Amino acid sequence: MHTVLPDTPGYFFGVSVVDLGKRLRKNELTSVQLTQAALDSIGRLNPLLNAFVHVNREGALAQARQADQALASGADAGPLHGIPVAIKDNIDTFDMPTTYGSAHFAKHRPPIDARCVARLREAGAVILGKTLTHEFAYGPTGDRSLQGAAHNPWNLQCMTGGSSAGSAAAVAAGLVPLAVGTDTGGSIRIPSALCGTVGFKPSFDAVSVEGVFALSSSLDHVGPIANHVEDAALLFQVLSGQAPMPSGQVRSALRLGWIDGHAFCGVDPRIESQVRRIAGERFAQELKPVNGFEQLVPDLRATLIALQRAEAYAVHAERMKEHPGLFEQEVRERLELSAQVRGWEYVRALQTQLTLKRRMAELFEHYDLLVMPTLPVTAPLLDQREIEIAGQSITVRDALLSLTSAWNVTGLPAISIPAGRVAGLPVGLQVIAPAQQDAWLLGVVA
Amino acid sequence: MHTVLPDTPGYFFGVSVVDLGKRLRKNELTSVQLTQAALDSIGRLNPLLNAFVHVNREGALAQARQADQALASGADAGPLHGIPVAIKDNIDTFDMPTTYGSAHFAKHRPPIDARCVARLREAGAVILGKTLTHEFAYGPTGDRSLQGAAHNPWNLQCMTGGSSAGSAAAVAAGLVPLAVGTDTGGSIRIPSALCGTVGFKPSFDAVSVEGVFALSSSLDHVGPIANHVEDAALLFQVLSGQAPMPSGQVRSALRLGWIDGHAFCGVDPRIESQVRRIAGERFAQELKPVNGFEQLVPDLRATLIALQRAEAYAVHAERMKEHPGLFEQEVRERLELSAQVRGWEYVRALQTQLTLKRRMAELFEHYDLLVMPTLPVTAPLLDQREIEIAGQSITVRDALLSLTSAWNVTGLPAISIPAGRVAGLPVGLQVIAPAQQDAWLLGVVA
Repeated sequence: MHTVLPDTPGYFFGVSVVDLGKRLRKNELTSVQLTQAALDSIGRLNPLLNAFVHVNREGALAQARQADQALASGADAGPLHGIPVAIKDNIDTFDMPTTYGSAHFAKHRPPIDARCVARLREAGAVILGKTLTHEFAYGPTGDRSLQGAAHNPWNLQCMTGGSSAGSAAAVAAGLVPLAVGTDTGGSIRIPSALCGTVGFKPSFDAVSVEGVFALSSSLDHVGPIANHVEDAALLFQVLSGQAPMPSGQVRSALRLGWIDGHAFCGVDPRIESQVRRIAGERFAQELKPVNGFEQLVPDLRATLIALQRAEAYAVHAERMKEHPGLFEQEVRERLELSAQVRGWEYVRALQTQLTLKRRMAELFEHYDLLVMPTLPVTAPLLDQREIEIAGQSITVRDALLSLTSAWNVTGLPAISIPAGRVAGLPVGLQVIAPAQQDAWLLGVVA
Repeated sequence: MHTVLPDTPGYFFGVSVVDLGKRLRKNELTSVQLTQAALDSIGRLNPLLNAFVHVNREGALAQARQADQALASGADAGPLHGIPVAIKDNIDTFDMPTTYGSAHFAKHRPPIDARCVARLREAGAVILGKTLTHEFAYGPTGDRSLQGAAHNPWNLQCMTGGSSAGSAAAVAAGLVPLAVGTDTGGSIRIPSALCGTVGFKPSFDAVSVEGVFALSSSLDHVGPIANHVEDAALLFQVLSGQAPMPSGQVRSALRLGWIDGHAFCGVDPRIESQVRRIAGERFAQELKPVNGFEQLVPDLRATLIALQRAEAYAVHAERMKEHPGLFEQEVRERLELSAQVRGWEYVRALQTQLTLKRRMAELFEHYDLLVMPTLPVTAPLLDQREIEIAGQSITVRDALLSLTSAWNVTGLPAISIPAGRVAGLPVGLQVIAPAQQDAWLLGVVA
């Protein structure tokens, strides 16, 4: 097995940003040193991982020098000051190419930063480079883009998952301590689970999507990928402008609902039992099965499909007409399908989405958190398109999206945190909170 | 020519509700007398007009007796206290059948009142009966419904226009002094212009559509039909809960923009010159031509079509599948067309609608009011489906919707007021105001 982890990781493997911040402020290290460590790790490992598609070497070092000078002069911009951060390549950066993973934008350089990048710069972060995105973020495998496939650091022959493929691989392998991703059906949580990082999809609208190339405007979210929940919380705080939860507010007696993944699709029994055990240990609470959830699943699935397809085609209609050959084949085929959704089906989907949000609010009258696996499988092989789960064959695409996309439709905050490994590959535990309870969820899970 | 007007009108022909209110309070007449006068007028003229599809004779008289007793005891519910009002039959009433003009609901009786009807009852109005609607309000001609066609009181062989066909005919002929209509592409203003009443489509969302059978949820409006602008304002006040504009606020120097109807389609030159002349006299102001408006027309038209079709089919998908034969043929054919709109086109239409609203807000930086004809033609014959305007043939449907639907797409308040007659048939002057300026528009036009 060709691997990077756990034997030859990058500098930031498992490193805590909270800890880095303390050391920066004690002068035990500098932002230039951190940035150089990131550049060295990228130089050594990125040829194996293909996580970064562009690195702003000189620009990042200049930002790091500025960060060091500012800190030395007492101008502390906050917890991300001087910390190297990677940005998914579907997010605009004025000082780097931004290809959206597509040949359509091979030479694109946006005039201004996305809102979330601007916020990071204001917070003193060092914007290191751009990470591989599945073409136009339209795919959960992370192996179809202008720049090819990202490789899973735990097994280079496996996919990272996507679409925030490079962001998860870069953090998992220790190339950077933090990365920004986007999530429309699971695109932060899927690669986080497959690569073993923390990935947080905030509540809908909690983080601005201005300057993020749209996939599906009613489902798109921006969020953090990190080694630790505390670090994800720091990044979320900067991205959203929301204050963290005061530490006293974590409730001791949580009502935890366990959602049976089989409501959605088959689940690898090893993953199921491991996630359930680890969740029980982590929260030291009983998990109560949520009954009847499977009744919502057909609506959740149909709503996602109608919203995502219609909105995605609305973004790409002219490109599909004028330059269809520039799309990667799978993405083009998916867009062709997407053109078929009827207007009235989309209208129904918007209505059903409102109903589902109400249903979830009702469910959360009985639970504080919902818990389930992030994925029913560990990382498939690169280019693999079918997979067997418990003797049943399913497309890799459907398997990867099966347990995450419900929380895009309902707009609820959902986090994937590492839950050990199965057969050497990472597994994710997914925790879902009521709408707008982002800071609380991060506090509880940390 | 078979006519009701102007020779044999009903009791309320041209009567002022403001005046009726004064006389009620002076004990010069009673609500029971007014209600009986309405019932008598309906008994005499409705066989010719087919404006009412249900009359709640006993219930209305009981309401009128209560209104008289309340007024006698000093409990005055406001300006509509004791006034008979007609309700379009696509609006739910708990005490009468509500067919939505369709065989699908031939025996339907809703359990509760629509919000707007409940407001009228609270305001002491006498809910007299239900007026003919084009089937499911899906048509501007008013001659296709479970109950057949409504007849224009100025020429019984002509259409009333629709879809609020019966409401406009009932007020125009003097069967009632006030009626409630709905307007998705012009359905209050079109029959008002063709029958010679005042018809007001408020700002989007100014009046609740709860309990109104949906045609197109992003375009549907509820509003008043009346003899006089002041009366329409009283009814709007009750429907919306908005206070009237204080009388001192009417500006003397108005900036009036004249929109050339030819931006949308051909206009009968007699209508154009008459409306322009009457608008100039009424406002005693110069009308300045709005330049470049024709550039917005393709987007206005395409947006209306995509929104209305997709939303309408979303309402009727199951009925179209299970009982297509119960639809009137034209409505069924239109729904078949409506099923074809693509989801991505609908998504684009929602985006374009937002852009168009912004464009209109910009235009209203230069004008206080926009003025134009309500319709390019006078009332076509019943069942007529093509019409010639200035030598060019156009479908009656397109002609009727051509000048009104833009204000549904943009959600702006728009009123049609009588502007004399051409060849014996009424003509409407349309006045459009900035968003949310409903009370101001009514005040200025009165």
